[in-house]
Amino acid sequence: MGRRARSAAPHVAGLDTGTRNGILDAMATALIGARDAIQAANKLDCKSAKAAGLSAALIDRLLLDTSRIEAMAEGLRQVAALPDSLGVDLAVNQRPNGLVIRKVRVPLGVVAVIYESRPNVTADAAAICFKAGNAVILRGGSEAVASNRAIHEAITAVAGLPANAIQMVPTTDRAAVRALLGLDTMIDLVIPRGGESLIRAVAEHSRIPVLKHYKGVCHVYVDRAADLDMALAIAVDAKCRRPGVCNAMETLLVHEAVAEAFLPRLAEIMDAEGVELRGDERTRALVPIALPASESDWSEEYLDLILAVRVVGDVEAAMRHIEHYGTRHSDVIVTTDQETARRFTTEVDSAAVYVNASSRFTDGAEFGLGAEIGISTDKLHARGPCGVEALTTYKYVIEGNGQVRG
Amino acid sequence: MGRRARSAAPHVAGLDTGTRNGILDAMATALIGARDAIQAANKLDCKSAKAAGLSAALIDRLLLDTSRIEAMAEGLRQVAALPDSLGVDLAVNQRPNGLVIRKVRVPLGVVAVIYESRPNVTADAAAICFKAGNAVILRGGSEAVASNRAIHEAITAVAGLPANAIQMVPTTDRAAVRALLGLDTMIDLVIPRGGESLIRAVAEHSRIPVLKHYKGVCHVYVDRAADLDMALAIAVDAKCRRPGVCNAMETLLVHEAVAEAFLPRLAEIMDAEGVELRGDERTRALVPIALPASESDWSEEYLDLILAVRVVGDVEAAMRHIEHYGTRHSDVIVTTDQETARRFTTEVDSAAVYVNASSRFTDGAEFGLGAEIGISTDKLHARGPCGVEALTTYKYVIEGNGQVRG
Repeated sequence: MGRRARSAAPHVAGLDTGTRNGILDAMATALIGARDAIQAANKLDCKSAKAAGLSAALIDRLLLDTSRIEAMAEGLRQVAALPDSLGVDLAVNQRPNGLVIRKVRVPLGVVAVIYESRPNVTADAAAICFKAGNAVILRGGSEAVASNRAIHEAITAVAGLPANAIQMVPTTDRAAVRALLGLDTMIDLVIPRGGESLIRAVAEHSRIPVLKHYKGVCHVYVDRAADLDMALAIAVDAKCRRPGVCNAMETLLVHEAVAEAFLPRLAEIMDAEGVELRGDERTRALVPIALPASESDWSEEYLDLILAVRVVGDVEAAMRHIEHYGTRHSDVIVTTDQETARRFTTEVDSAAVYVNASSRFTDGAEFGLGAEIGISTDKLHARGPCGVEALTTYKYVIEGNGQVRG
Repeated sequence: MGRRARSAAPHVAGLDTGTRNGILDAMATALIGARDAIQAANKLDCKSAKAAGLSAALIDRLLLDTSRIEAMAEGLRQVAALPDSLGVDLAVNQRPNGLVIRKVRVPLGVVAVIYESRPNVTADAAAICFKAGNAVILRGGSEAVASNRAIHEAITAVAGLPANAIQMVPTTDRAAVRALLGLDTMIDLVIPRGGESLIRAVAEHSRIPVLKHYKGVCHVYVDRAADLDMALAIAVDAKCRRPGVCNAMETLLVHEAVAEAFLPRLAEIMDAEGVELRGDERTRALVPIALPASESDWSEEYLDLILAVRVVGDVEAAMRHIEHYGTRHSDVIVTTDQETARRFTTEVDSAAVYVNASSRFTDGAEFGLGAEIGISTDKLHARGPCGVEALTTYKYVIEGNGQVRG
């Protein structure tokens, strides 16, 4: 499969923009056309999941009803409509000797995507990788195996798609994943999509670069110069609206000068939202309802209605806390002091640093990227929400008329 | 050292352009001022090298005479004069909800440079890492230990340089390097500079991303539509002028339609240049002087006056050869056919792809980057000659006025 993908890569890279977009639109049509077959396959997966005693939430993730299939097709059309990142000159440099050196955006080559239960990832990931001119190898979870195959069959039956441009690992056993992760001469990038344990397993065994984040321990720091109503609204949004996602707040830091005015109000509203508070000693002096926070709370990604709260002496202490316990994902300062905001955005070393807004905006669609393949907390190659551009690289193309260096 | 570098990083990142450039200029002045001390230390290194029986070529690499110290200082001044990459907005996106999302170029954080015998790397690498706003940890070779220390002492005595911004590993034993390569929470990037064995050792043991290329097996393909005089001049430049460098040609591929006209001329001039030819059967039918090339010759980085030559049926066969045996460094097509040139530059997956020019131009200075920290044949993060920009990343800075996602 690796060799086939590598051979397919130049054919995918060689398709012009219109052809690539036409194929993506045709995939959308093919998905709708294959709705019955996809739903029949999906029924098998859901039946096995029930028999295996999977939770209702997991079975809901698996389910493909008509509206979800339509949403998948619409997603393909949206990727088709995105501007093309390929072929763009990132820089052009005409040298004194007449050489024209162009830095051109090109596909990465071959991308592997390893994912868990949601079968829509099959279409979404294939589309974004293909849009960026890459061959892709997909490996879905065992719960969705029949659904994934039906989706893969539908989208790869489209005319004009180069052979082996979109392959699916035919087995779901773990040895196949291990073998895949060793193909560093065939595959340029691996993207794991799923829980932290999947991502850690991929990163640990991969000889191929991995685009990933392990977890998001996101902070909101309420500065002494904060608008406290705004801080409250941001805290509620960042903690309560979707506590199970990586850009939700896990720790709230409050400047000591506003702690007395802010924390009782926070406690009241968090209590009403069903959030359990865990605080340091200074927090608990102001908010008796908070349980004591232990050292491990500061590193915890609760993914739940639990919030750790700490009172800090100044912005410096807040930044030291974030540096020590944070995961370089998304961190927020609420302040009206521009100089403090500037220090925070300059010195906090996270993929997304917010001034006066919720951390929940760290997302490809919210950032206007059109589609997202994942979020990266690494600092090399791509950082933050990763769209089509994160699946490209550049090469230098140098045109001369016989120049030699001598 | 890792912890100290990590703590120093935000202080280096926080320096404005003028301050950073002023410090680089002061380092240049300090180097000239410390010339006597540096030369005294260098004499010790050269004496030990002679005593240890090192070759004259290696001792020459070690030597720091007055002109080399002046060149080092001039290099620092040139880095100071380069435009600043930091703080640049790579993209600004005002969202419908009023959020302003800026993608801002920022330093990587902490860079480690591991290098061999040339002591000038101490100043060069420190300068380029510092220019990009990073803290740096330097680890030079044991032969140059006294010289490196004297240079490090001179450049770090400059007023205004944040503490621990430029550290040097005080020992040259290998255990220290191993320990360094495990500090993946402290160091963001490792750059090995030296021979293939150093680079392989670093890449194998590093838990930190490595900016590298192992070797350059560079190809020149002479197309059926080539200007043969131009092809000859490019071949001679790419093979003979500095055979020991990574961007020199190792294999020449010739279209069968021009082999008879081209190869005897090539053989004559290569013979005069003292180059040994190793050819496939079709080459040897036209050029009896060539020794037979074995399968292993096609993967060989000779770094010497030896050239492998193969006759191919068409550009497709040339590209398959490059895909199979190449190292994705620098590859050349000589042709007057624009469509063939376009196919070659699109499909050949190398960091630098040339039309009608010598592969020898793959170099930071020749590309106009001002300074080079290395050449990358990886496809992620940075590719080809790497200047200051390759030592930066980006972060998203998002400014709002209380936006929540809901």
